[in-house]
Parts: sequence; structure tokens; C-alpha cells
Amino acid sequence: MAAISAGLEDVVAATTALSDVDGERGELIIGGFPVGELAAEATFEETTWLLWHGELPSRQMLDGFRATLAAARALPESTQGLLRECAHRRIDTMDALRIGAGTISLEGDSPHAIIARLPTIVAAYWRMRQGREPLAPRPDLDHAANYLYMLSGTVPDAERVRGLETYLNTVIDHGLNASTFTARVIVSTGSDLVSAVVGAIGALKGPLHGGAPGPALNMVFEIGDAARAEPVLRAKIERGEKLMGFGHRVYKVRDPRADVLAAAAERMFTRAGDMTLYRLARIVEGTALRLLEEYKPGRRLQTNVEFYTALLLHGLELDVELFTPTFAISRVSGWIAHALEQQRANRIIRPQSVYSGPRHRTWMPVSQR
Amino acid sequence: MAAISAGLEDVVAATTALSDVDGERGELIIGGFPVGELAAEATFEETTWLLWHGELPSRQMLDGFRATLAAARALPESTQGLLRECAHRRIDTMDALRIGAGTISLEGDSPHAIIARLPTIVAAYWRMRQGREPLAPRPDLDHAANYLYMLSGTVPDAERVRGLETYLNTVIDHGLNASTFTARVIVSTGSDLVSAVVGAIGALKGPLHGGAPGPALNMVFEIGDAARAEPVLRAKIERGEKLMGFGHRVYKVRDPRADVLAAAAERMFTRAGDMTLYRLARIVEGTALRLLEEYKPGRRLQTNVEFYTALLLHGLELDVELFTPTFAISRVSGWIAHALEQQRANRIIRPQSVYSGPRHRTWMPVSQR
Repeated sequence: MAAISAGLEDVVAATTALSDVDGERGELIIGGFPVGELAAEATFEETTWLLWHGELPSRQMLDGFRATLAAARALPESTQGLLRECAHRRIDTMDALRIGAGTISLEGDSPHAIIARLPTIVAAYWRMRQGREPLAPRPDLDHAANYLYMLSGTVPDAERVRGLETYLNTVIDHGLNASTFTARVIVSTGSDLVSAVVGAIGALKGPLHGGAPGPALNMVFEIGDAARAEPVLRAKIERGEKLMGFGHRVYKVRDPRADVLAAAAERMFTRAGDMTLYRLARIVEGTALRLLEEYKPGRRLQTNVEFYTALLLHGLELDVELFTPTFAISRVSGWIAHALEQQRANRIIRPQSVYSGPRHRTWMPVSQR
Repeated sequence: MAAISAGLEDVVAATTALSDVDGERGELIIGGFPVGELAAEATFEETTWLLWHGELPSRQMLDGFRATLAAARALPESTQGLLRECAHRRIDTMDALRIGAGTISLEGDSPHAIIARLPTIVAAYWRMRQGREPLAPRPDLDHAANYLYMLSGTVPDAERVRGLETYLNTVIDHGLNASTFTARVIVSTGSDLVSAVVGAIGALKGPLHGGAPGPALNMVFEIGDAARAEPVLRAKIERGEKLMGFGHRVYKVRDPRADVLAAAAERMFTRAGDMTLYRLARIVEGTALRLLEEYKPGRRLQTNVEFYTALLLHGLELDVELFTPTFAISRVSGWIAHALEQQRANRIIRPQSVYSGPRHRTWMPVSQR
């Protein structure tokens, strides 16, 4: 029997044709495309189709897929009522998403319905939390544009839609991360897609997986001014604090997604006409990298995806609490693609454990304890 | 990098003090006790305490724990409404359990609430599906007795309670099975217990994990008469059908849980005064083992836990559709124990994948495809 591998770091648990993460070279392939080639060009519908079918869709396929998704967005009354109850009790948005997504089973188990409804759940819940009425989805808008519309009530301009789609494409799949692996373990028992996605949402909720873009942005706000970057960061490192947005378990060089998102953020902030925050973030990043190399030489702590995710989503006027749910709205396409891939060549995923407890205990009734 | 291990069979993914499965020797230790020493003696509350605390509780601890669980059984109105909607749409009981369990987050994340409410959800949903009103839990009854009461409306006699508790204790934990592993992966990201349990319910739903006791019983009913056992089983094997209730991925000798459950079933049927089904099952088992050795020599296909689970739960007048949900009502204690153990020495569980897809694709807009 093999040595204990508590985090399964060095264990290969699946073969996949969906994405390839090369942490040493800093390369990410999604559906055959380097992430930088795909993310800024494709619509979210195209990237989802690519993952599910292995090829980009023709015009006809794409139009059909967009229409199918657009028609599947509305939530049944019972789901809306449940979200109201969650809002009344001020439940965490990721928990509300998990609870709401679980009810997709009320109307079946189709991949389309799952993809289509997650943004509706998040946007409806977000508005309920603000004391506002949820908005009905707009079938004339594509997936990303409709999500922004359902959140804000305003049809977004093309640049904002492009910014969100670039983000959604960039994080749509990433090898066997913990939530994707969860989805594969669940379907490996012969279970269904909603069960897999609900489990994956639960895993994504954890701060070690999907929860750090908020803190990365908070750090930039805390610094506030370029002149304060070095003293604030130096103090953080000397206090032993982790710098949010830097370092990744897999990437030992610059996370390729960081460049894609930085470029998208730059374009969006340029169009919006206020580069202050973007320039500050760039300075914070440069200073952090320099100080990390100074204090932790050889640790190879590089900018990760979260740093520019935070900047980009903030530029889209998404609240920090929406960052991880928006991540889920993207990654769900990858979860489903992996679940379908697992189903096609399935073997139940059931590892071993080593026992460290006592043996040979003898029963004693409670009256004698 | 290691070889690909699609099912992780030979990978050790955790150290645990909760249970030890020795598939070659046919031994199962739960909380330090051989399963045969513990299962027929302990109450479910005692076994749960044992898993969560590593020791059997004192009288005072046990009384407090029983009272805490009994006080946490009731479901909020919104959960009941959701279950009614599920019943109206005739949703699968395991999906309804997953959906209902997800709403435990409405009132917090305590291990006690999770354990206490799963039976209430299953019993309420079961009665709704029959067109009957759910029954309020009875705080004067212990966990197992209250579950039987909430299903049937009748306070069960001691022998039936003992039969159910023996079952619940026998299947409460079993190393890193797929649902338990799912729970550990989910909490390894820093997520919460409800998320872990909801993911695990989704995994348990799959027929490769929790779904085969029903078919094992159906096979006994199909045979119906001892004289038909050999011809029916021989025909099944010759048609290439799998005999449900025989063979286990881990156990290569007799599943130690089968003996515990067979003894419990024998006692219960003896008390009930009708041994017909029990005797038939014994004959079916003996014939199946003989024929499996004849047709598949060396494959070591032995009676597994499902065969006598089916007989015992049927003797308790549980419908086949309640078998897997009742399994969940037991295993949830193990899921939580594993989740707490994972939290105490956590490392995010994130394996590797190997990429088999294309590379170097170049983007082409849809107008050119």
C-alpha cells in the first residue's frame, strides 16, 4: 500500500480532455486553447459548449444553445420562496446558492438548467438581501449580460460584458481542483448532476478553495495609496501574515490567468476613465512580489488568479460577497463537463485510509461506566 | 508523478481513528470495537458519541446528548413546505433528503442538528409521499425509536428498536467510502458541516455506493420458494447478471457486517413469529455462494452487507425506497466524525489529473467556423 497522501498532491486521480494545468511552466490549456487565446474572445456559451463537446460550436449550434439556456433561467416559485427565507435569516450567499441549486432537482437534472439557473439564484438572492425585488431574466440577453442585468437592473455595455465573460472563461476549468474533484467523486457512485454540483458548491465555499479574492482586494484598499504599499506590506510579512492574492499550490511561476485578467481589468478601467485603482493594484503587486522574494527567497510566491479577479469583479461593481458565487457561475460548466467525462469512463472513487485508533475494546454497559 | 489511479483503490488518502476495514481478514473495527462487539449492544446515540469523542459516554454525558438531539429534531416551516413541493413533484427520496438537509443551514451548522433532523426529513417526506400528514417528533423517544414512530405512527417495541439500532451501528462508519471521502474533500477547503453532509448524501445516492439493498431483497422475493433458488440463480449467472448482495470492492472474505445483521434479523423474525422469509434468505444465500464458487472460482464473491440489510429493514416494515435514506441516517454520524477529524489536521484535498486533450488550438470567430 502506498504512503499516506493527505492532500493527494502527487496522486493522479483522472485523465481529462478538459484542461491542463502546468504549474511549473505557468501554462493553462482549456479545451485545447491556451487560456490567453480563448478567454478574451469567446462568449461563456461558446466556452461551455467547447468543454461539453470538445469543439467550438457552429453558428447554428451556438444559437440553439443560447436559446436553450435563455429559456431555462427562471426559478420555480418554491425556490424563490426558499431564497426569501434564506435572505430573511441573512444566510451566507454561498449557502443560499447551494440551497437554491439543490432545488433544481424539482424540475429535472439537465446540464442546461443547472448552468442557466445559477446566475438567477445568485442575482435573486443578492437583490433580496438588499431588500429589493428580484428581476426576471431577460431572454434577449446572453448569459453574462443577463447576469449583470439581473443584479443591477441595467443592461450592461459591451465592455462590461466582455470583462465578465473574460473572467468566466478564465476560471471555467482548472484540472482536479477540490470542487471539481468533489463533483467527480459524487457522480462516480452513479449519482446525478445536481447532486454533483451541489457538493461542488459546498467545496468551493471553503476559503482554501474559492474564498480569497475578497481579502486580496481588501488589502489593496487598506493600502489605499502607492506610497503606503511598501511599509504596509512589509509590516504584514513581518507579522507573519499571508499576503492574499499571492502564491498557489500548483503554480510555481506566474499564474497564467493573472495576465489574462489583468489585461481585461486594464481595458475595462481604461474605458471607464478612472485608472486610479488599477494603477494602485499594479504597484501593490510589484511591491508584494519584490518583498516576498526578499523575505521568502526561493519560495516562488507569484501573483495568483485571485488578485486580478478581485480587481476585475470590483470594476464590474460586484460586491465582494458576490466574488465566490460568481466563480461558481463559471466553474459549474467545468464541474458538469468533468461529471459527464467521469460518467463516460466511470470507476467509483474510493480511496483507502490507515487506522490509528484503538483495537480490541470490550463492550461495557453505561451502568458500569 | 504517480501512475493514474482512476478509482484511488490503492491510494491512502487519510489517517483515521474512527474505523478500520480489513478486507482480507474480514474485520471491521468501529471506535476501537470489533463491529460484532458493539453493534448489537450500543444505542445509536452511544455509537455516535463514541465516534465523535473517541470514548463511550458516561451516563450523564449520554443523557445530555440524548436530550440535545431530541430537542433538535423539529423542522422549520420552510423545510416542511419544500418537502411538500418535492412530494407534489414525486421527487426521489434521496433527492428530497439532500434538498431538505441543505436547509439545515437556515438554523445553523451544529453536528447535533444535522444528526437529529435527517430522520425527521426522511419520515416527513415518506408520509407526504403516501398522502399522510407528517408526525411531530416525540422527545420522550430515543433516536431510533422516534424514527420508526415518525414513519409509522406507532411506538415500536424494544425488539424492533434493537433491530434498527443494530443496523444503524453496523453501517455508521466504514473507512473512506465514497460519501465519507466526499465529506472530507468538502471540509478540506474550509467549508462547513452542512455542505459536507449534503455532498455526502449526493454521493450515497449513487447505486454503486448506497443503492443496492433493494435489488438484493427483490431477488429473494423473485425466487419466492426454496426449491426455485438454484434454477433461478443459475439462470441469472448464466445470463451474465450480477447477483445483488454478493461481492464487495474491499471485502474478499465474508463482510463482517453480514453476520451482525443476519443475527439481528434472525432474532427479530423469531420474535415476530414468522421465519419463512428469513429461512428462504438463508437458503438463497447458501445457494448463491455455492454457485458463485462454481461459476467464478477464485473470485471470492461473498455475502455483503446489503443482503442482510435488506432482510432486516424489510422486517422493520421499511419500504425498499427507505433503505438508502435509512443508511444515510446512520452514516451521517460517520460523515460528521470524519469531517471533524479532517478539520483537526487539515490539508486541502486536491489531486492531479493528466491531460489527454488537444493543444495549440487557435481561436476562430463563429462567423468563420
